[in-house]
Amino acid sequence: MTVGLSKARVVIRKTLEKGNELGLKPLSVVVLDAGGHVIAFERQDGASPGRFAIAHGKAYGAVMLGMGGTAQMARAEAQAYFMGAVNGLFGGQVVPVPGGVLLRSAKGAVIGAVGVTGDTSDNDLIAAMAGIEAAKLNGEG
Amino acid sequence: MTVGLSKARVVIRKTLEKGNELGLKPLSVVVLDAGGHVIAFERQDGASPGRFAIAHGKAYGAVMLGMGGTAQMARAEAQAYFMGAVNGLFGGQVVPVPGGVLLRSAKGAVIGAVGVTGDTSDNDLIAAMAGIEAAKLNGEG
Amino acid sequence: MTVGLSKARVVIRKTLEKGNELGLKPLSVVVLDAGGHVIAFERQDGASPGRFAIAHGKAYGAVMLGMGGTAQMARAEAQAYFMGAVNGLFGGQVVPVPGGVLLRSAKGAVIGAVGVTGDTSDNDLIAAMAGIEAAKLNGEG
Amino acid sequence: MTVGLSKARVVIRKTLEKGNELGLKPLSVVVLDAGGHVIAFERQDGASPGRFAIAHGKAYGAVMLGMGGTAQMARAEAQAYFMGAVNGLFGGQVVPVPGGVLLRSAKGAVIGAVGVTGDTSDNDLIAAMAGIEAAKLNGEG
Repeated sequence: MTVGLSKARVVIRKTLEKGNELGLKPLSVVVLDAGGHVIAFERQDGASPGRFAIAHGKAYGAVMLGMGGTAQMARAEAQAYFMGAVNGLFGGQVVPVPGGVLLRSAKGAVIGAVGVTGDTSDNDLIAAMAGIEAAKLNGEG
Repeated sequence: MTVGLSKARVVIRKTLEKGNELGLKPLSVVVLDAGGHVIAFERQDGASPGRFAIAHGKAYGAVMLGMGGTAQMARAEAQAYFMGAVNGLFGGQVVPVPGGVLLRSAKGAVIGAVGVTGDTSDNDLIAAMAGIEAAKLNGEG
Repeated sequence: MTVGLSKARVVIRKTLEKGNELGLKPLSVVVLDAGGHVIAFERQDGASPGRFAIAHGKAYGAVMLGMGGTAQMARAEAQAYFMGAVNGLFGGQVVPVPGGVLLRSAKGAVIGAVGVTGDTSDNDLIAAMAGIEAAKLNGEG
Repeated sequence: MTVGLSKARVVIRKTLEKGNELGLKPLSVVVLDAGGHVIAFERQDGASPGRFAIAHGKAYGAVMLGMGGTAQMARAEAQAYFMGAVNGLFGGQVVPVPGGVLLRSAKGAVIGAVGVTGDTSDNDLIAAMAGIEAAKLNGEG
């Protein structure tokens, strides 16, 4: 199973719909492939201009470390210097908070990641999971 | 006139449709706002993973310099060291070839840019212009 | 509503006047547009040479995150590693303390930001707000 | 003789006036001190958002190398790899074309630089020299 453009579109549209339904602030959503490369991205009107970088950082860290945002945050809180070192390795592109979600195949292989930003990290994650489920993918938040 | 997410979606879909219609290689399309920040991006299945950076570089250079890709290429050919210096200023993010298209309001103000990559630069530009026209925007390639 | 050069000049002059009136140390003031790009900057005689970067960092973080400096500081105090990660994303250009002020239109859209540095962060903010009010703009500090 | 904020303001205003008088495209003007640090900057409405970096790069190269933009361009045309290496040293911040002007005291000491961008390099230089003369400073273009 891989994530292609048509699945990525479903993830993005359904994540944004969930955000609208819950009355969240404008969201931005990125979908990366198994190599951490961008497949698709959308930023809702009214979101701040830096949101691509933040959405990307949540998803990119998930792929590169093989850990969802929740696990990354736990590690950052336990060992801030470790996540600082990780950011040195990856050019400062890792944002270790919820809203970064690993996508796994039925057999557990990482096939990509989703990154959502705009509201609280917890709400970002709720919207992301709604999009991922709508696309019939397995997410690890 | 500004470019929001709904216009950006039209540009991307119609650019990709034009590529399919002409039998081009898989394309990647980004739409930036007037500040050079990403609104939306899509990469067709089969495109190489580095295409986000190339599409972005074509559009980003257009916004930051206020010049379409064709004019940037002419400057690069006349003064290679100048475009090299420009790339130093902007973190190596400028790709001065056709396929980067400025979006202008009816009054001529820059309101964003489109970047397309995947086939030849000339074909990238043809596809981009089809997407821009479908969205009823004015493009300067 | 947008911030052009004439409004930016008013913000800068009135911020500096307020600093002089309150007997603050020499101030530096930058005004950015909605994309985080510099419109105007002035550094008073006697200020240290690195003040452009600090003023810029306060205003740039405000635009990119859509948060004033006070809210950024609260986030940095609650989750230092998050603001560290944000700085990785934005090339180390974010200074999350008071003195960075978002400019909003009457409808609430972000139209730019002001960054002031030179005295205490709290005094920098007082001077910034005086400049912003003199220009009939709405500031979120 | 040093360049302070009041002289920098005169340089900027008179450079912009000269540009308006000659019908040039919107200009951006920066004034740096003897250490290459920003004193003041203004960008006219309608200029592209990347103009701070370009104006800065013209002036910064002048200060750091002790050469005006015209001399830098000659060196770049004779030895492109040398200016490439210089840009490596200075973080990609040098733009070696006319419009970067050294400011010298009566005794010949470098006291700062002016950088102008927006029209052709030659016109940028004409406008810069008008601003420098109006401020009773000596410019080496």
